[in-house]
Amino acid sequence: MSQETVAAAIPNVLAERYASPALKDIWSPAGRIGIERDYWIAVMKGQRTLGLKIPAEAITAYEKVKSQIDLAAIDARERKTLHDVKARIEEFSGLAGHEFIHLGLTSRDLTENVEQLQIHRSLGVVKMKAAAALIGLAKQAKTHRDVMLTGRTHNVAAQPTTLGKRLAMFGQEVLGAYARLVELIERYPVRGLKGAVGTQLDQLTLFGGSAAKVDKLEKAILKHLGFKQALFAVGQVYPRSLDFEVVSALHQLGASAASFATTLRLMAGQGLLTEGFQAGQVGSSAMPHKVNARNCERICGFSTILSGYVTMTGALSGHQWNEGDVSCSVVRRVALPDAFYAIDGLLETFLTVLKQMDVFTAAIAAENTRNLPFLATTTILMEAVKGGAGRETAHEAIKEHALAAAKAMRSGGGDADLVGRLAGDARLGLGRPKLEKILSEGSRFVGAAPQQVDTFVGEVARVTKGVKGASAYQPGKLL
Amino acid sequence: MSQETVAAAIPNVLAERYASPALKDIWSPAGRIGIERDYWIAVMKGQRTLGLKIPAEAITAYEKVKSQIDLAAIDARERKTLHDVKARIEEFSGLAGHEFIHLGLTSRDLTENVEQLQIHRSLGVVKMKAAAALIGLAKQAKTHRDVMLTGRTHNVAAQPTTLGKRLAMFGQEVLGAYARLVELIERYPVRGLKGAVGTQLDQLTLFGGSAAKVDKLEKAILKHLGFKQALFAVGQVYPRSLDFEVVSALHQLGASAASFATTLRLMAGQGLLTEGFQAGQVGSSAMPHKVNARNCERICGFSTILSGYVTMTGALSGHQWNEGDVSCSVVRRVALPDAFYAIDGLLETFLTVLKQMDVFTAAIAAENTRNLPFLATTTILMEAVKGGAGRETAHEAIKEHALAAAKAMRSGGGDADLVGRLAGDARLGLGRPKLEKILSEGSRFVGAAPQQVDTFVGEVARVTKGVKGASAYQPGKLL
Amino acid sequence: MSQETVAAAIPNVLAERYASPALKDIWSPAGRIGIERDYWIAVMKGQRTLGLKIPAEAITAYEKVKSQIDLAAIDARERKTLHDVKARIEEFSGLAGHEFIHLGLTSRDLTENVEQLQIHRSLGVVKMKAAAALIGLAKQAKTHRDVMLTGRTHNVAAQPTTLGKRLAMFGQEVLGAYARLVELIERYPVRGLKGAVGTQLDQLTLFGGSAAKVDKLEKAILKHLGFKQALFAVGQVYPRSLDFEVVSALHQLGASAASFATTLRLMAGQGLLTEGFQAGQVGSSAMPHKVNARNCERICGFSTILSGYVTMTGALSGHQWNEGDVSCSVVRRVALPDAFYAIDGLLETFLTVLKQMDVFTAAIAAENTRNLPFLATTTILMEAVKGGAGRETAHEAIKEHALAAAKAMRSGGGDADLVGRLAGDARLGLGRPKLEKILSEGSRFVGAAPQQVDTFVGEVARVTKGVKGASAYQPGKLL
Amino acid sequence: MSQETVAAAIPNVLAERYASPALKDIWSPAGRIGIERDYWIAVMKGQRTLGLKIPAEAITAYEKVKSQIDLAAIDARERKTLHDVKARIEEFSGLAGHEFIHLGLTSRDLTENVEQLQIHRSLGVVKMKAAAALIGLAKQAKTHRDVMLTGRTHNVAAQPTTLGKRLAMFGQEVLGAYARLVELIERYPVRGLKGAVGTQLDQLTLFGGSAAKVDKLEKAILKHLGFKQALFAVGQVYPRSLDFEVVSALHQLGASAASFATTLRLMAGQGLLTEGFQAGQVGSSAMPHKVNARNCERICGFSTILSGYVTMTGALSGHQWNEGDVSCSVVRRVALPDAFYAIDGLLETFLTVLKQMDVFTAAIAAENTRNLPFLATTTILMEAVKGGAGRETAHEAIKEHALAAAKAMRSGGGDADLVGRLAGDARLGLGRPKLEKILSEGSRFVGAAPQQVDTFVGEVARVTKGVKGASAYQPGKLL
Repeated sequence: MSQETVAAAIPNVLAERYASPALKDIWSPAGRIGIERDYWIAVMKGQRTLGLKIPAEAITAYEKVKSQIDLAAIDARERKTLHDVKARIEEFSGLAGHEFIHLGLTSRDLTENVEQLQIHRSLGVVKMKAAAALIGLAKQAKTHRDVMLTGRTHNVAAQPTTLGKRLAMFGQEVLGAYARLVELIERYPVRGLKGAVGTQLDQLTLFGGSAAKVDKLEKAILKHLGFKQALFAVGQVYPRSLDFEVVSALHQLGASAASFATTLRLMAGQGLLTEGFQAGQVGSSAMPHKVNARNCERICGFSTILSGYVTMTGALSGHQWNEGDVSCSVVRRVALPDAFYAIDGLLETFLTVLKQMDVFTAAIAAENTRNLPFLATTTILMEAVKGGAGRETAHEAIKEHALAAAKAMRSGGGDADLVGRLAGDARLGLGRPKLEKILSEGSRFVGAAPQQVDTFVGEVARVTKGVKGASAYQPGKLL
Repeated sequence: MSQETVAAAIPNVLAERYASPALKDIWSPAGRIGIERDYWIAVMKGQRTLGLKIPAEAITAYEKVKSQIDLAAIDARERKTLHDVKARIEEFSGLAGHEFIHLGLTSRDLTENVEQLQIHRSLGVVKMKAAAALIGLAKQAKTHRDVMLTGRTHNVAAQPTTLGKRLAMFGQEVLGAYARLVELIERYPVRGLKGAVGTQLDQLTLFGGSAAKVDKLEKAILKHLGFKQALFAVGQVYPRSLDFEVVSALHQLGASAASFATTLRLMAGQGLLTEGFQAGQVGSSAMPHKVNARNCERICGFSTILSGYVTMTGALSGHQWNEGDVSCSVVRRVALPDAFYAIDGLLETFLTVLKQMDVFTAAIAAENTRNLPFLATTTILMEAVKGGAGRETAHEAIKEHALAAAKAMRSGGGDADLVGRLAGDARLGLGRPKLEKILSEGSRFVGAAPQQVDTFVGEVARVTKGVKGASAYQPGKLL
Repeated sequence: MSQETVAAAIPNVLAERYASPALKDIWSPAGRIGIERDYWIAVMKGQRTLGLKIPAEAITAYEKVKSQIDLAAIDARERKTLHDVKARIEEFSGLAGHEFIHLGLTSRDLTENVEQLQIHRSLGVVKMKAAAALIGLAKQAKTHRDVMLTGRTHNVAAQPTTLGKRLAMFGQEVLGAYARLVELIERYPVRGLKGAVGTQLDQLTLFGGSAAKVDKLEKAILKHLGFKQALFAVGQVYPRSLDFEVVSALHQLGASAASFATTLRLMAGQGLLTEGFQAGQVGSSAMPHKVNARNCERICGFSTILSGYVTMTGALSGHQWNEGDVSCSVVRRVALPDAFYAIDGLLETFLTVLKQMDVFTAAIAAENTRNLPFLATTTILMEAVKGGAGRETAHEAIKEHALAAAKAMRSGGGDADLVGRLAGDARLGLGRPKLEKILSEGSRFVGAAPQQVDTFVGEVARVTKGVKGASAYQPGKLL
Repeated sequence: MSQETVAAAIPNVLAERYASPALKDIWSPAGRIGIERDYWIAVMKGQRTLGLKIPAEAITAYEKVKSQIDLAAIDARERKTLHDVKARIEEFSGLAGHEFIHLGLTSRDLTENVEQLQIHRSLGVVKMKAAAALIGLAKQAKTHRDVMLTGRTHNVAAQPTTLGKRLAMFGQEVLGAYARLVELIERYPVRGLKGAVGTQLDQLTLFGGSAAKVDKLEKAILKHLGFKQALFAVGQVYPRSLDFEVVSALHQLGASAASFATTLRLMAGQGLLTEGFQAGQVGSSAMPHKVNARNCERICGFSTILSGYVTMTGALSGHQWNEGDVSCSVVRRVALPDAFYAIDGLLETFLTVLKQMDVFTAAIAAENTRNLPFLATTTILMEAVKGGAGRETAHEAIKEHALAAAKAMRSGGGDADLVGRLAGDARLGLGRPKLEKILSEGSRFVGAAPQQVDTFVGEVARVTKGVKGASAYQPGKLL
């Protein structure tokens, strides 16, 4: 391999094309080392407080150099020692001019906790962006609260709803995923300092057998790092089903956005809306009218990606051998960061669509006009009966016309004028003006859709309140 | 279908070989009809309270016949009407001699809620059995709290722990899955009465447009059925990612048991314990000594099965088209009951193993004897230095002997007598008696393992307190 | 199990609602016993031929009773012996009045081979139905070979194609899955008679150490059962990745049908076709015009189900412990039959849709009319230039009108009359008649679509030739 | 983000830590551009041959500069044009000083075929390494052909086999995956030049409507690129279930290696062998005797990773909308290269283990000594009877001693001296010398194991013959 090729390492496509700096900073090689150094410093501080002879100036020295991250230097050390953790210890201590980090720690006391910190912080970023997405959805739902829309089941016109309600409906799914995410973040427990097989032997030895001190040290570190609870009976590793829980929570969140995106793709195909253009985006020169729902397709793609990481972490779960092994190692190196990059890319795309989507209300109205007579037959029946028609007679008449109109539409390919047909039937006694009046009263057909939007908007305000940065968050520019 | 074929229907293997009556009663055709009828009655009661003209004696009549479930009669009706919900309405009303059920409901107002009831009740059963498993684990952990055991990482002897601690370690994983399950049960929201596309149009029409009454009806039904919250902005269906959440919670629970089972299979292979025999079980006549960890293998199998249902429900998530479609229908018919049967079979098996497992403490002690000298080299070094040996000299001596002993073990295939080697080395100044004394002080090597067991036992008591039936639950006989 | 419970066994929903008798006969409890008895007889015959003292009349006796399958009697025997294989041996020998089956066999020598026979025969059924589906697709493609259709990418109108070509396109995907299936059937190897850990020890003992006779016995059995090759170095079990190969081939086939079904659902939503009605099927009384693509949705559902069994069998692969264990047992009991029921239900549904689908050519033509002016702008440009217009001028004019028309369509909701706009622009020099003439020449726009249909039809004829029963196969009535 | 951070793009961990140059060269950004340029040149040559006016010197010019790949320059162009394919066209044409590439191609005519080339070439590399692994396995199997080993089922001693046979058994699984891979490579069809919706409209236009020329062009390109067949009726894209087929074939291959690796991990835990040390590798300083099966664990990890990409590509299958969309785009960007990196890393690791594994035959013999008396009871019975003992009496005596010995082993933790017990029982009439003689005749117990090794070795020779580079291939140094 030539020098040039080395320089041009193959990039992680999820990180480099789709993820935002917030996530990349957590999971990049340099970002990880930063977190690791913070962790070491927290341990030192805790150990010092509890009586270990670690000089204050040593801690200060480490703190001073903690941002001097020289990947090449660390790499050179690793090639000599052939041990990655050792190389990073030596580099950090070399910079600080002291040797007080990693006392009584095994490699897993470091790496498990650091990775859990990466996960926990990433979950925080995801929560903020999910909250931002909910706020965006609520805004769009409110805007289109009363825009009557032909609701579809089986992809076929079924009953009217409103566009705002449809958006709230997808928002409902996001809210479910969000609630789960919040619970997980609250409960997420860290492995802590447990030694080679989880018995805390090394820290106990360090503190002369004082279980109280070992316990205090762990609590101090938890607090420092922002965790509320530690696991108390682990082996070499924390249970891998916890990774599955994390990734499946991400998939649930991604899937809720994908439901929204799938329906937007359907609506774009029917010309009812567009996901919008990004500034500077150029369409096909051959087909300048064509507006593709590419971002919505991408959201669906990210959701599919997440399902793969669910499989990977799901396959790790339940396979712990004794106190732990490293058959999970390469899997977690891939699945954990990549799952976070994927959900991050998904949320960035989702937020972009929510910001740029553009509704063609005239097209939506035209669709209603074509479908409403079919969807409103129950109401028309009631009105005919009210006006004096016999129920059975009227029902028969309506059914005849509906079937005939549907047939005409299919064989003629165009509008079937069901209203005209109904207006011309004396059995119903409803002229065209009366029928059109009925059909024009949208609120008769959309039920509680607008009120449901209000509930959704209120719920979003409630659950996103206090989520720092969410309401102001703007997605980055997409590739 | 002819009578003969009905008689010989292909059975659901998960239900019929592995699941317990508690789960089968919820998901069997008759069980489902029972739940459905309860639901219809709850709706009628609510509607009557809110002013619909439903006579009290009609409700009484329905209640009286609700347990008369004649699958053949319903089947005959379905073959006439070609509509399953209609057939069941007619049967129930026929038995009651009234026609007041299903007023203003669409099929999904029935089926979604009934299925969610099945899910919610099943989750309750699963929670009870998971609590029973935790209690069983805690009991075993307590019993073996101080039994020193050769802890392993990479499947190779690493550091001592205790058997109780190892069991607590797997209990820790179960606790995580249990916590998530409890959260899910608490939060699990039901779809409620929302009509064909979710706008509540039909119920609103039924109550003359009174949103307040529609709201009250839903609340009454929720209360009656034991749900704490309803979704407020659904389409035809509730979001399918909720099914994924349920099934992934089951997989997480199953995986936690599978980690335990995997390690028991390893330990059985090393002759350290057995999962036990069931009363009446006969071993191979050719190999009467052979005790296979079949139940533990089965637990692992169930966990694998659950991973498949995770994939199925995960693949449904994010694919909602508009207000909903039925491409999920056949998937949910399979994945939901079968996932519950699988976790139920898994928990029954897990509980059986916890009850019957038998530990060969002498074999465990013999393993320690073989390994402890290797695992205790750090302690031996300290003692040698304390006794006057030079640290470097002692370190060198120990390393020499450890490597030589390991080599001897591999090439000789038997015991390597590391203790003898060390005892014979004047550089260390430790005789065999002294060395054996060190090695006999098990508590020096197991760190906080016993105390972690205590914490686990306490935690189990805390989280299972008040879970009705858990502490007394006994698994059924396995096939 | 009491009589009542036996009567109301929970049925396997995939088998009982969706699968056809052909598959159910292979996988039902009785069906399996039939295959097992055939296998035992084949072994006896082989052993007799090679010199074991098995009387001819004993074999005749077994053959005579082999169809007397009394599940209740076998069940009663199993409750006494607590061993399923033993119970079935005793029942069969009891009926025959001889004791010559299962000589020198271990349980796995029976069960592995029987299950592989079930798989191999099922694959044959699947192949036949896949061939039938190809024939159905080819017929539909031929019928609609020249029906111009608005091709879509990103779900948005892109370039014309023909409906026949679109069907051939999905047929191409089916052909790929079919080719793989055929290869798999050809190559599928059976485990054979290998004994408890695969060393053939017991058969060798039986034949006094004659490896040649053991080999001949196996070859005879293979031939008898229709396999072309046996594995030669297995353990207790055949490699489980072979199950993964089978199930992933089924998923590939199912997915190819699901691609077709997905697009039919899209087209049904746009009113371009219907999957058809089954005789006797009644639509919604409230919405008599509504034709739901329920069967196509079901096809997609089956495909999702298969993806779950891919995960299950994929998770078994790579986890063999030593010569084999039974952690796969419960998984295979579920995943293998259920995967075959699912693909069978899928193919039955697919064949039904292919038979009943109904194309609304007028609606397709109307869609073309709306879209073709946009899709034909390149051709219009060429014609304008041919007629004397400057290329740049003409391009500019067309672009102006296309964008304006698209905008009008979105804001007006209706037809945008791009033709009218172009006809009215002197810069192009093309009047409405000329433009309409261009647009009417469908063959200018569909490229090689019709010829590709011909290739597809030819290819289907080639690969399905000689597949017994395929061309005449009719799907059963769907529930 | 600072300049430095930009420079240090987050690397693809599978590519950079585990994959070999052969795979990285195919999938790296530069590697892809190389393949793309080859493709463009092949198209030009074909078009020129068929009459398009493309000067020979233009082609020569392109060929001359095709290796000048300047990623930064291309990136700068993309930032201007905002179109990745356009940027690469301009760069290549700029370098060549001509504009003859990409005539009549749409983006997918380029990208689909290039990606299929990447896949096809990667499959070739994988095949070569799989062949190398088979050769390595055959070599090890041959070396240990006759080393008697305690075969295990349920992880418990069951019947003797040989180590060579156990290796051949895993080789059998690899052979199955290899056969499938070879079939796939042979059959793998390329999309070809089909235009925007697959109708070949643009190439037909380019060649004045000559279908014959379009066909010839495609055939010429296929030949040039090494494909044997093209798809004939695609849409915008080739069917995505083909990607699923590829990735599931990789998973099958990876799983076959993982079965081997799992059992090596079990054997390492029992001290029977080691996967070996890499030159320069340093063990734990605290536990110098500890030899972890890290590489085998890693193989299992890669297999798990592949299962996730199976899920991803499986989830794409069956979801084509119309002539195609790009919801698969981001998924394929991740799953395809990463699946190949993973299988490559797996094979490199597998080859390393096969090269370095070290068998502790003494330990294996010691295990046999402990277990053989139990496993040989059937033979001992026969010998006792031969010597004059009554069958029933002898059977009873053996059973007594076997159970007592097993019990003693468990309660005493050590050797149970079954031989001594049997030797001391007059009912059997077999003294210790006779018993030890029986037990020493290994070949009585291993059946056809050695002959099966021979068959395996022969089969490997047959299928790997002619696979260029396989027998000489050496894995790279692992990290």
